[in-house]
Amino acid sequence: MKTYLDCIPCFVRQALEASKMATGNKIKQEKTLKAVLSELENTSLKNKIPPQIARKVHRIVREVTKNNDPYKKVKDKYNRKALKMYPSLKRKVAKSKDRLLTATRLAIAGNIIDFGPGSKFDLKKTIEDVLAQDFAINHFNQFRKALNSSKKILYLGDNAGEIVFDRILLEELKDKEITFVVKGGPIINDATVDDARFVGIDKIAKIEVVSNGDPDTGPARRSKEFINKLQDADLVISKGQGNYEALSEVDADIFFLLKVKCPLIARDIGAKVGNIIIK
Amino acid sequence: MKTYLDCIPCFVRQALEASKMATGNKIKQEKTLKAVLSELENTSLKNKIPPQIARKVHRIVREVTKNNDPYKKVKDKYNRKALKMYPSLKRKVAKSKDRLLTATRLAIAGNIIDFGPGSKFDLKKTIEDVLAQDFAINHFNQFRKALNSSKKILYLGDNAGEIVFDRILLEELKDKEITFVVKGGPIINDATVDDARFVGIDKIAKIEVVSNGDPDTGPARRSKEFINKLQDADLVISKGQGNYEALSEVDADIFFLLKVKCPLIARDIGAKVGNIIIK
Repeated sequence: MKTYLDCIPCFVRQALEASKMATGNKIKQEKTLKAVLSELENTSLKNKIPPQIARKVHRIVREVTKNNDPYKKVKDKYNRKALKMYPSLKRKVAKSKDRLLTATRLAIAGNIIDFGPGSKFDLKKTIEDVLAQDFAINHFNQFRKALNSSKKILYLGDNAGEIVFDRILLEELKDKEITFVVKGGPIINDATVDDARFVGIDKIAKIEVVSNGDPDTGPARRSKEFINKLQDADLVISKGQGNYEALSEVDADIFFLLKVKCPLIARDIGAKVGNIIIK
Repeated sequence: MKTYLDCIPCFVRQALEASKMATGNKIKQEKTLKAVLSELENTSLKNKIPPQIARKVHRIVREVTKNNDPYKKVKDKYNRKALKMYPSLKRKVAKSKDRLLTATRLAIAGNIIDFGPGSKFDLKKTIEDVLAQDFAINHFNQFRKALNSSKKILYLGDNAGEIVFDRILLEELKDKEITFVVKGGPIINDATVDDARFVGIDKIAKIEVVSNGDPDTGPARRSKEFINKLQDADLVISKGQGNYEALSEVDADIFFLLKVKCPLIARDIGAKVGNIIIK
């Protein structure tokens, strides 16, 4: 997805929120915000996807505040919070008429744990809503069919905490050869290898890393190397907005599972903010 | 009220919205937004009130887009819309048990017509809500008393459209010597002399202009000249957030009537977003 002018105020808001996560020092917060304003002023939006710019913004936040992982606390908090919910989520799956559908819905519900679009969300309410809600774009039948005929699955995770909900879905995909992809370095509250291990995903899937573009944290999502991996899999499951922004135009068998939180993604995908999607 | 770091993302959003109001040309919109990013990067927030920075931001929008009044259309639209509602608003006052209270509530309800905090609001729903809603800060009894013992009233208007609701309140203030203050030049959808005349306020009050700081559009709200006027009045009625931001620390007998639309003003005044205030 291309970067719109409307992304700019959103990046500025993200920079402020991230700088507050990174430091309580207001002078550093202001310095960070001004460095981001300067970066955005001098960045051409042309031919750039939003995650490319987000990567620069959050790198500035880390550099100016000298905090290498501003969202560490909230990542830990939501990993623990979601793990506490894990037994009751498993019961929901066990009691349901259609285990795969319920597990898929839960994986999408977990996508609300996203500190990119803002820091306010109600996890428990979202779970109940998403279990009952109609899909705005519903390719679930194709998804089930594709799963049945697939062996090699690439699963692109999104946020810390959310990955516990992904684990619920992963555990329904028995006898598959699954690779779970996380970020190679900290950006917003995106899950990293540590998060994936903490919630036990390494017990059910191979873990691989991808980056938003920093070369030392894995191949970029749009690199030839990574796109080869996407195309090499029988099926790709892509969670969340960031992966959609990065891969919506890539030619591979990708199912996008997400909760729409941004009006521009809503427009691009053909849905509304608040909708749930399996496309 | 001082300018917070949190005002910055809001100014950037305002600049984008204003640039879209000003022109359909996306290249000009981007040029405008980048000029505003540069301005904000190089502006110290220290000892500045938000309207001072807003003035610069919107001046850049006018200059870069070469549109001297980006909100002209919505100002006209809401003046007309509110004038159409005028007869039914008058009936609400006539039917009410307490005419002054109802007229005051309506004047506050009209304050929702504000394109600063965002361009989405529901005017009709707001009117019904505000007529039924409790005040979060309620100095109405003091307001009534102060009105009874006042002759010279200075009424600081806020937005186009809203001023029709102000007219409803002004018409209840019989036998007073009222000066209605509007902006000397276009900024967001703030009412100007043309708007005040269009909705017939010149028939019930003397009209004076004030500016956000541009010297050719009247004295600034915080100039010695204008503060003298505030102090010279028996009573000042101040509508909306901008006037509160500019005058909250000024020593004069000011009643602030507003609907809270910004979380920072909410915190400063001691209320919540959505609350109505007479302080």
